[in-house]
Amino acid sequence: MRLLKERILKDGVVKPGNVLKVDSFLNHQMDIELFNEMGKEFKRLFADRPINKILTIEASGIGIACVAAQYFNVPVVFAKKAQSINIDGDVYSTKIESFTHKKTYEVIVSKKFISQQDHVLIIDDFLANGCALIGLIDIAASAGATVEGIGIAVEKGFQSGGDIIRNMGLRLESLAIVESMNPEDGTVVFRDGMN
Amino acid sequence: MRLLKERILKDGVVKPGNVLKVDSFLNHQMDIELFNEMGKEFKRLFADRPINKILTIEASGIGIACVAAQYFNVPVVFAKKAQSINIDGDVYSTKIESFTHKKTYEVIVSKKFISQQDHVLIIDDFLANGCALIGLIDIAASAGATVEGIGIAVEKGFQSGGDIIRNMGLRLESLAIVESMNPEDGTVVFRDGMN
Repeated sequence: MRLLKERILKDGVVKPGNVLKVDSFLNHQMDIELFNEMGKEFKRLFADRPINKILTIEASGIGIACVAAQYFNVPVVFAKKAQSINIDGDVYSTKIESFTHKKTYEVIVSKKFISQQDHVLIIDDFLANGCALIGLIDIAASAGATVEGIGIAVEKGFQSGGDIIRNMGLRLESLAIVESMNPEDGTVVFRDGMN
Repeated sequence: MRLLKERILKDGVVKPGNVLKVDSFLNHQMDIELFNEMGKEFKRLFADRPINKILTIEASGIGIACVAAQYFNVPVVFAKKAQSINIDGDVYSTKIESFTHKKTYEVIVSKKFISQQDHVLIIDDFLANGCALIGLIDIAASAGATVEGIGIAVEKGFQSGGDIIRNMGLRLESLAIVESMNPEDGTVVFRDGMN
């Protein structure tokens, strides 16, 4: 998606340790106009799929998922980090290893909100090693729901998550795939150029 | 806001311990059509204020804030629970005591995304004892930003947060104020009736 790639080139910051900071428009401050364009693009990419629900994970996937949901006319369910006393016992849960936070945490979705009747589109802001996505796919599988597709804003193509997910036979669409980036000069190269 | 109150009566569940579960449409599964109506209402209520940014807090405030932001044509910034290694050192931070999770945690906003030029609308899904909101107000104050108003979906009017915030002289608009609720029979009474 050209608009997103241009924005990454303009406002993304490459840091040592394979960190791409896009916090000025994607996952701390959020540009809602951009999110709308991303939502339209997800709808275009998954127009042929019978999606009745969007599944995401707290926190930074929620904004993109909610704005995108308007183009699908479906509700959003977000997987919660397991700590709330307000969640009933009846949940699907999975463990996720966080690359960013260097720890493992449990996320849960109430059984009330995902079932074998559901055809879900999974949306998240970032795909790197794929742990968060695999957790969401695991929750969908536990519920017997069908994963119709996965929509990602920014994929780090040089990490393994994208290959792992595609090798599972799932349809994964990333709006920008970073092929390489250089913290020395700040350059970012995309897999399919600027298309 | 009548639509939200009707939805609380229809799908909200009153639990012992002053818990009002609205997780089927507000803060686990999210009804984006309802969020759009709430966003329009926030715009109507704060139309006279020169708002250039919406400030919220992860996780369940993000969806409402992002959908509402479309009616204000402004970006959203969400306060993050302090754990990310990707946040620069240059942040405003505050401590928040969570009623739900029975613990204290630190939240942060990068200094890049809130400044004395900002006129913020604070949005969140719930107001009970006010700790999360007071934390956000504290962050705005640290940045020298102006809090133009606070928009809440559901306020528990029988807890102290609403009074504390209003006594600070801030304009607080809650779309539904629960005056009382009864876990025995599941009834919910709103402060201003169904208006």
